[in-house]
Order: sequence, then C-alpha cells, then structure tokens
Amino acid sequence: MSLDPINKELIPFLELYMPPSVPKASSKPFVTLTYAQSLDSRISLGPGIRTAISDMETKVMTHYLRFHHAGILIGSGTVLADDPGLNCKWLPSHAGTVPLNENSPTPIIIDPSQKWQFTGSKMHQLFTLGEGKSPIVIVSKEPETREADVRYVVAVVDATTGKFDWDLLLTQLKSEFGLDSVMVEGGAYIINELLNRPDIVDSLVVTVGSTYLGAGGVAVSPAKPMQLDNVNWWKGKRDSVMGATLK
Amino acid sequence: MSLDPINKELIPFLELYMPPSVPKASSKPFVTLTYAQSLDSRISLGPGIRTAISDMETKVMTHYLRFHHAGILIGSGTVLADDPGLNCKWLPSHAGTVPLNENSPTPIIIDPSQKWQFTGSKMHQLFTLGEGKSPIVIVSKEPETREADVRYVVAVVDATTGKFDWDLLLTQLKSEFGLDSVMVEGGAYIINELLNRPDIVDSLVVTVGSTYLGAGGVAVSPAKPMQLDNVNWWKGKRDSVMGATLK
Repeated sequence: MSLDPINKELIPFLELYMPPSVPKASSKPFVTLTYAQSLDSRISLGPGIRTAISDMETKVMTHYLRFHHAGILIGSGTVLADDPGLNCKWLPSHAGTVPLNENSPTPIIIDPSQKWQFTGSKMHQLFTLGEGKSPIVIVSKEPETREADVRYVVAVVDATTGKFDWDLLLTQLKSEFGLDSVMVEGGAYIINELLNRPDIVDSLVVTVGSTYLGAGGVAVSPAKPMQLDNVNWWKGKRDSVMGATLK
Repeated sequence: MSLDPINKELIPFLELYMPPSVPKASSKPFVTLTYAQSLDSRISLGPGIRTAISDMETKVMTHYLRFHHAGILIGSGTVLADDPGLNCKWLPSHAGTVPLNENSPTPIIIDPSQKWQFTGSKMHQLFTLGEGKSPIVIVSKEPETREADVRYVVAVVDATTGKFDWDLLLTQLKSEFGLDSVMVEGGAYIINELLNRPDIVDSLVVTVGSTYLGAGGVAVSPAKPMQLDNVNWWKGKRDSVMGATLK
C-alpha cells in the first residue's frame, strides 16, 4: 500500500493531541490511545477477523501518528488476527529518503501467554528488509525460548486483579528502552481497560467510520462511563475523528 | 428549555436527509431514523435511565428535524424512562408566533403491552397547553381502556418473528392518519431493528456525543452489519453528526 499525502487540515487538528517535542520530565512515556471504530463502536466484525473500517484519509493519519511516537503498543490477539506491519510509511516531504525503520515506532506486543511469534510475521519481514523495527514483547513469565532480535519484558501482574500493572510496565518502557511516547492501537481488551485510566492516557484519537459492524463485532466500551475534555472533531469524507483527553 | 438559534451550517447539511417538500407517491411515509449516542454507541447509562448525550447545538437540530416531520415514533420503554414532550420548539424566524402544537409532529408510541399512559405524561401536559399534539399509540391487541384524545392502532404482529410488521404499520400511518414523514427517535430495540431495514429507512441522522457511557449502557448495534451510502459529517463543538442512507 502506498499512502496518499496527508490531508492538510489534519496536522493542526492532531497537534493538540501529540506528544510534546521535548518530552516532559515524567517517569512514564506520553500515551496516545488511538483506534478506528464503526458507528456501533466495533473494531472488527468478530474475534480474529481483520476488518477495514477507516478510509485512506484516516489510514494516512495513523501513519502520521506512528511517525510521531517512539513505540506502538498492541495486544497479541490483534497481532495474531491482523499480522500487522506496525511500521511507519509516512515521512515529511522535506525528509528525502530515510530508511523506513528509522522513522518507524518500536512495536510493543502484549503477549502474556506467549502465543505470538516474531519469526514469520509481517513485522519480521519488514525488520529484515530494513523497513521496520524489531519488537519488545511483554510476557507474564520468563519465555521458554527467546527469539532472535526480540527484546522481552517480564511484566508484573497485579496480585488482586490478575492484570498487568500498567504503571510499572510504562515506567519500564521509558527507563529501560528510552521510549518517550507510546501509541496504543488495540485490541478491544486493552482499549477498554485504558479508557478508564486518565492517570495513564495523555490523549485519545478515535476514528469513527461510517458503517455498522453489527452485534457480532468486537466492541469497544469501557467498564465505567468516562467523560472527556479538550474535545475537537475533524470530519473527513467518510470518517470523522475525535481528539480528546480523558477527564 | 429555550432553544438557541440553529447553527447555520446544519441546514444545508441536513437538507440531504430531509423528507421531500412534495411527498413521493408511495404507500409509506418517508422514514428518518435519528438518535444520539456516545462514542461507545450507548444511548443511555442503563435501562430506564434518562441520559443527556447531545450538546445544545444538536438538541436544536432535533427540534429542527421534528419541525420537518409529520410524525415522531418512539418505543414505550424510552417514553416510560424519559417522559419526553416530543413537541417541536423550533420555528423558522419568519414564522412569527405559531401555536407550538401546529408545528409539532404527531407522537407515535410503540406500546405493544400497553404499559404507557398518556394521562399524566409530559406529552399530555403539552397537549393540554396547546404546545404539542396528542399521540397515536400502537398496540398489539384491542386496548382494555381507551384514553381520551389517544388514537390507537392495533398493529399486525408477524406470525413467524413475533415482531410488528413495520411495512403494514407504516402504510397504515400514511393511509389512516395522513402522515407523509416519520422520524424514529428510539429506543435501542427499535433503532437496532430498523438499522437493518434499508427498504423502510430513507435517511439516517446520528449524533455522536464525546463521552463514553460504559459497558452497562443501552447499546445500539444492529443484528447484522450494515453499510452506508451518501455519507456526510457535520462537526459541532462537542458532537459530530453523520447523515447517510442505508445501503
């Protein structure tokens, strides 16, 4: 896929939701939560089904966001379903020819039960071609086998909830790997959890595609209601995009 | 509540989705499906909980739509939860002083098990004050008691599905009551059913409010995926509105 140029209106619109150019003095990276949903807040037609929702205009936006983030975090369920490249194909027009791996974010794969393999994946292919970075894989215990070029983080699981301790994990991503900014792209489980974490999420960029995926789809909806601040909308041809912060 | 003036951009945007000024030669009324949802496609925080989603800008839009429709259809669940007035408080600026009941649509209440009473409702109050019309109530069998000023339709229930026969009902609303256009405002059960009926729904106007109501909310999502045509977005301050037709 080659990208269209970015819609010029999107750049000032997104500016409000971008990581600062000089990272803040914080132990955690700047976190942008971003995803594309149907009107009925589904991100796919069903578990494991790769589903196109966004138009070219907002696809380009995703690559523009990737260009501006050091890491891109995604759950292994989505990675197994979509086999995504997670690299960045967008470059500022003045940048000339830069190898794609340099301006691509580092993939961070949340894979507690170690279901995903880097070898053989689209990500691996791009890494081999010099068009993407190799991933950091977040596991819940020491991996039995360690794949070449993969960096592992054995994350702390909260004793009471059985869930990852996001605070610790994000702190580790910054202190160990120097990642100042992370965009979270999915899947639904991770999105739903982070939508209730205004202490962690710095900005929210949601694409609403003009389609209904229906009741069988994978739904985004946080456990608790959540109000938003600093709301702005951008309207495209077929999609609309909302930028906001969690209140 | 007194209304703000309508945002001038909304009028040409909505024009595409309005009933024609000269009704088409059809046995059924023009049907506009319209509702306001949160980002996570909830129309309320929970069953029976009245929930404000839309901003003043899009509230005014609803009254503008009511001005342009002969009937306004809503399920008794929503009526029992919200006790809505369903009248129209919007008037073109050149209209002078017109009694509110004249430019208000006729409420059509889908109440198969006859749970709702007109007497004592906000609708009744407005009707008494000359600020709204009296309703047509759609029931599934002859009512035991008939309330004053209420017109009843004993609707045909489909033998296989146990659901209303929408085709017959809409035909009846046109032939018996002369309603050339009907806007459907909810609740979720009716919206979900009609979202899968491109044969019935002529246009769709959805407000997306910038809030999450959470997993406990009442969700809009049709049983089957549905693609859209003639898509346009309008962006407001806090809300975005999509106009479309069902494909």
